[in-house]
Amino acid sequence: MNKFEKSQTLLKELNGDGWLIVCNEGSDVNSRFLLGVESHARHYIYVAVNGEHRVLAVEMEAPMIEKSLKNNGVHAKVDSYNSLEDLKSKLSLIVNKKRIALNFGENIFSQKGTNYADFIHAGDYFSLIDLAPNTEFFSAAPIIYDLRCVKSQEDLKDLRNVCKATIEILESLPDIVKLGMTEREVKAEIEYRYMKLGRPSFPAIVGSGANAADPHHNTSTKKVEPGVLLVDTGLQIDQMCSDITWTFWLGNKPSDEFLKAYNALYESKEIANKYLINNIPNSIPAIKCREYLADEGYDHEKLFFHGFGHSLGFEAHDIGARISWKVSDDFILKENMVYTSEPGLYWEDKWGVRLEDDIVIGKEKCEKLTYNHKDPITI
Amino acid sequence: MNKFEKSQTLLKELNGDGWLIVCNEGSDVNSRFLLGVESHARHYIYVAVNGEHRVLAVEMEAPMIEKSLKNNGVHAKVDSYNSLEDLKSKLSLIVNKKRIALNFGENIFSQKGTNYADFIHAGDYFSLIDLAPNTEFFSAAPIIYDLRCVKSQEDLKDLRNVCKATIEILESLPDIVKLGMTEREVKAEIEYRYMKLGRPSFPAIVGSGANAADPHHNTSTKKVEPGVLLVDTGLQIDQMCSDITWTFWLGNKPSDEFLKAYNALYESKEIANKYLINNIPNSIPAIKCREYLADEGYDHEKLFFHGFGHSLGFEAHDIGARISWKVSDDFILKENMVYTSEPGLYWEDKWGVRLEDDIVIGKEKCEKLTYNHKDPITI
Repeated sequence: MNKFEKSQTLLKELNGDGWLIVCNEGSDVNSRFLLGVESHARHYIYVAVNGEHRVLAVEMEAPMIEKSLKNNGVHAKVDSYNSLEDLKSKLSLIVNKKRIALNFGENIFSQKGTNYADFIHAGDYFSLIDLAPNTEFFSAAPIIYDLRCVKSQEDLKDLRNVCKATIEILESLPDIVKLGMTEREVKAEIEYRYMKLGRPSFPAIVGSGANAADPHHNTSTKKVEPGVLLVDTGLQIDQMCSDITWTFWLGNKPSDEFLKAYNALYESKEIANKYLINNIPNSIPAIKCREYLADEGYDHEKLFFHGFGHSLGFEAHDIGARISWKVSDDFILKENMVYTSEPGLYWEDKWGVRLEDDIVIGKEKCEKLTYNHKDPITI
Repeated sequence: MNKFEKSQTLLKELNGDGWLIVCNEGSDVNSRFLLGVESHARHYIYVAVNGEHRVLAVEMEAPMIEKSLKNNGVHAKVDSYNSLEDLKSKLSLIVNKKRIALNFGENIFSQKGTNYADFIHAGDYFSLIDLAPNTEFFSAAPIIYDLRCVKSQEDLKDLRNVCKATIEILESLPDIVKLGMTEREVKAEIEYRYMKLGRPSFPAIVGSGANAADPHHNTSTKKVEPGVLLVDTGLQIDQMCSDITWTFWLGNKPSDEFLKAYNALYESKEIANKYLINNIPNSIPAIKCREYLADEGYDHEKLFFHGFGHSLGFEAHDIGARISWKVSDDFILKENMVYTSEPGLYWEDKWGVRLEDDIVIGKEKCEKLTYNHKDPITI
């Protein structure tokens, strides 16, 4: 079953006539997910419950979309529009139905909210209400969740492949990184290798010294200095992403406090991994990890101020609740969900360390798609 | 005046209490424009007419934002939130005002619409209405337009710099590209060089042979073959972007039809450039370009099926109406707007050629930030 066919089944259950995706300049990643190709200009994808799928795109991009859908075995009529007036009249014929799903979120300030489905822009939403005042628009959140959260066997195969390729590149870093290179140059070396295979799944974070204390550091022109070098990076080949953090030590002898923190994080992950299994609440692995770090003497609440992991797949931050000690007990891990496992310890303006792996939630045991070295790599 | 101060002036004119930017996973580029740094997690920027600016961000990212604002001379209180409940209550104190600007567009299906300001997601919009039912939210389109459409002297300096750096890399391509490399490898070589200086302003389009006929071709694993090689690419250093297309010929002797099309496009640009000046309607340069192509015997309506140019600046597709023969006469070019000039001719499934330069609209004469060679470069 291709993605359009899966969506039809879900639409039937939701009693919907169709699912409309509105995308403009990459505003909705679900467009690329469905089309298999990136369309930049304003376009509309209509997945019809009766199989009469439609795409409206600019003339310049319609043939590219048509080819990609054909390659993916999807039968859809791809029309082009040559003015906004033309678009409006063609779209009007599509959206005047009884019930249409749209990518908007609900209850944004609640953990149970569906902000993972919140893509359509407010102005676009208003324009559709104007165009089809009698249509009932409902949130496509359940469709997006079902298509993307639990991974298919094909997704898992792709994930194994992309994780393996990323690890190979990370293993080559000791031969590439030299003192005096800038963080940005290290990033360029990594992503150059990615781009021959696919593309970065997000801009690599390369943090030297104090910059490693900033978990979402924007890679800078600072020269890499002796001491900690944190590299958080991921590759996307076709549809699936990796997301891995390794923390290196530049110089011969890592400091004792670095070694201690590295080892504590490594062990905390090993312990947490035992709980990355079917039917365990999302909070448990995070709690187990933090308990261990507390036992090792770390003030985890102060030093580890982010979640334990996030869902991974088509996006580096994919559909699915985080793994965090703050997530309520009714979020449950399911077999074949894929998560990052990424505890960290940070001393602001000094240094930080994070170890991040990608993990498939297993029935009785997780599957590690990536690894961190037990002892830190020195460069 | 920094960007926050400029926004204050605009807010005053609009009788607004503040301008709220809601951003999550890069959903609103105006966040990076204002903060000078990329924040990934959900955050809110409130530019206050009275100068009491606020940012709400996750604990992990708040220090990074605070540092960046300080570096840019902006005084703003950066608060962190540690749960969605916490965020909701902190945000509630900010948004319960009389009139607040939000980034949503109006009249999406009209050329006069403001879809360039359409960033806030529908679910986020609903959540703010719930949180502040008595606040009047209005579109921030005039603020965004004024901040970004006509470039400042500093923007122009940055644009000259980024365009020069991009051209140097394009000039080195004949030494880099070899028959048998994949399109993706060519892209990797270009972007590797970019990443040492900044980052790609969009994923480079590298199209060999028939792929060059597809203006928004997704660079593939196809091996570069003798004949046409189209490269459409741009670099972003700090805030400003370049966007340049060069079309090369692989092999010793370009075909006559390629040479003819290349020369016609080159001349059509030279003619159009004369009209890239203050107070000229946006449509005129496009019409002049097409008239020349028609005189040269090209069925431009069929073979050149995209606009002549788009605004360029903080984004590769920046704020400002396109230059197109289809744009109505009341869109007027203004001094220090920056546009691409990019006519193309495409024969579907065969080959295509596009030449694209970046141009500052001048008082009496445009300023060319980039160039294409008069005769095609052979590799």
